[in-house]
Amino acid sequence: MTNTYSIGIDIGGTNTDIGLVRDDGRCMAKKNLPTNKYSNASVYVSDICTQIKALMAENGIETIDGIGIAAPAGNFYTGCIENATNLKFKGIIDLGKLFHEHMDVPVVVSNDANAAAYGELVYGGAKGMRHFVMFTLGTGIGSGIVVDGKLVHGKTGGAGELGHAILIPEGRPCGCGRKGCLETYCSATGIRRTAIEMLEAHPEYDGPLREVPEADLTSKMVGDAAKNGDSLALKVFEKTGYWLGIALANAVAFSGPEAIFLMGGPVKAGDVLMQPVKESFKKHLCFVYDGSVDIRVSELPDNDAAILGAAALTKAKE
Amino acid sequence: MTNTYSIGIDIGGTNTDIGLVRDDGRCMAKKNLPTNKYSNASVYVSDICTQIKALMAENGIETIDGIGIAAPAGNFYTGCIENATNLKFKGIIDLGKLFHEHMDVPVVVSNDANAAAYGELVYGGAKGMRHFVMFTLGTGIGSGIVVDGKLVHGKTGGAGELGHAILIPEGRPCGCGRKGCLETYCSATGIRRTAIEMLEAHPEYDGPLREVPEADLTSKMVGDAAKNGDSLALKVFEKTGYWLGIALANAVAFSGPEAIFLMGGPVKAGDVLMQPVKESFKKHLCFVYDGSVDIRVSELPDNDAAILGAAALTKAKE
Repeated sequence: MTNTYSIGIDIGGTNTDIGLVRDDGRCMAKKNLPTNKYSNASVYVSDICTQIKALMAENGIETIDGIGIAAPAGNFYTGCIENATNLKFKGIIDLGKLFHEHMDVPVVVSNDANAAAYGELVYGGAKGMRHFVMFTLGTGIGSGIVVDGKLVHGKTGGAGELGHAILIPEGRPCGCGRKGCLETYCSATGIRRTAIEMLEAHPEYDGPLREVPEADLTSKMVGDAAKNGDSLALKVFEKTGYWLGIALANAVAFSGPEAIFLMGGPVKAGDVLMQPVKESFKKHLCFVYDGSVDIRVSELPDNDAAILGAAALTKAKE
Repeated sequence: MTNTYSIGIDIGGTNTDIGLVRDDGRCMAKKNLPTNKYSNASVYVSDICTQIKALMAENGIETIDGIGIAAPAGNFYTGCIENATNLKFKGIIDLGKLFHEHMDVPVVVSNDANAAAYGELVYGGAKGMRHFVMFTLGTGIGSGIVVDGKLVHGKTGGAGELGHAILIPEGRPCGCGRKGCLETYCSATGIRRTAIEMLEAHPEYDGPLREVPEADLTSKMVGDAAKNGDSLALKVFEKTGYWLGIALANAVAFSGPEAIFLMGGPVKAGDVLMQPVKESFKKHLCFVYDGSVDIRVSELPDNDAAILGAAALTKAKE
């Protein structure tokens, strides 16, 4: 059987990664461009297409199935980036149209969390699953929801913003202008906030996190300290896991999935996070779902996860 | 054009309502049976089928498209009632099989909230909608979620238990054994609990609700008092609306629907509930959904809503 290929593009505020992906989920080669060096979207897309053609030529690939693009505020229905807050391209950028000026292949656009879910479905641990939910933990929290084997996009393409579901009414202020959103508790930023709160609440603590100037404290430092058995860092992850377990149980009450996948920096803390997540999940899961849902870590390779997710979008079913 | 007909059956713990429904959503005639008088499911279904045949004969209908059944713990995938807690029939009752011993038509089974959502889609205010969520407020809270024009059933058929999504971590004890479930706050029972709490918290209040013995207090009394401008009852509905608005905003963050429908006793309180619901919803909705979602009251006629929902299940797409 001959392999087929597609292109996955991960657009970030700083960098744009472009990968040539074989249909078995192997990223064959990559290029990248500095997103923030472009102010003109047309020139930017033209340069991306030049890189795609170079990738194809260098790897002896003559045809591709399509181009999948994970972009901030990327809309599956319109193929546009819509008013992204962390990109220089303002307003509505019609990626589909811009790419079609250079290449005559299908172009599919979505946001990064939806792409991550699709990557898991097509190339990762969710292969063959009909119902699952992906949470991506990073600076914020994104989510992608698969129902009946298809991504849920909703009316306007904005479905699956579980990072902005309210976990604690009147809780921590969120960058979105509201209070108590999940991502204020369980993102990397949320973990940092919890650590700062805990340092204030436990003046008796004199471990390594006490030495770090507040401005320099990161969730990774807290994770590393927890892995080393640091008592305060462990408390931070217990709390984080408690909160996240509630959010996962609530997601199950919605779509009744067979698994929930977690991806992103904080997940690398490993058992110090996953153990309390699983305990809280079990405690908060409605009994009708007992035994029907697994909590899993993404099986996509770290370095290529975003590109694989983007490439997987080309296999998306309407 | 000739009309077609289907049968809708609403199985409750006390009564079973059976209706002959025309394809334009008119319930032509009804029969009922006392569910709690039967201990043998086979005899029960046989008697239902006798009633169906009588309904058809009395109305000159020779063929029906199918039988839709809304039942407690009804499972769409298996066609069974599975361990219903409020029915005398214990264990797994294979309704599909039992009905097919008497009638050779398609039989579709689901729970009552899913049926309500499908009723709204086929015969009510959600006609033509691709994405919406139905909340049914009663003794508990049920929900039915429609994505891409189809009900979400999830892995095991149990999707859409938003009454048991956790609204307030470590909040009010719920009958399910956990704490803080939405239904402990916003069901008819929850409204009653809030009223009792408010009566305790406001000893200065000497309005009509103070006269009612606690055991006799109902959410309908609170609703009626609120409509009459009673200060404490209004506070109860403000709080209920506040909580429900959060739950609705969280549902939107999941599936990005075009509308959320509310149905059931407490909704009949009208503006005293809907006004605070809409305020809280607006306050708690993530900005990406601004202006894209309506909060609506079910448009199914009260008396026939359950039968219409059940009959609508026969139009369900896998």
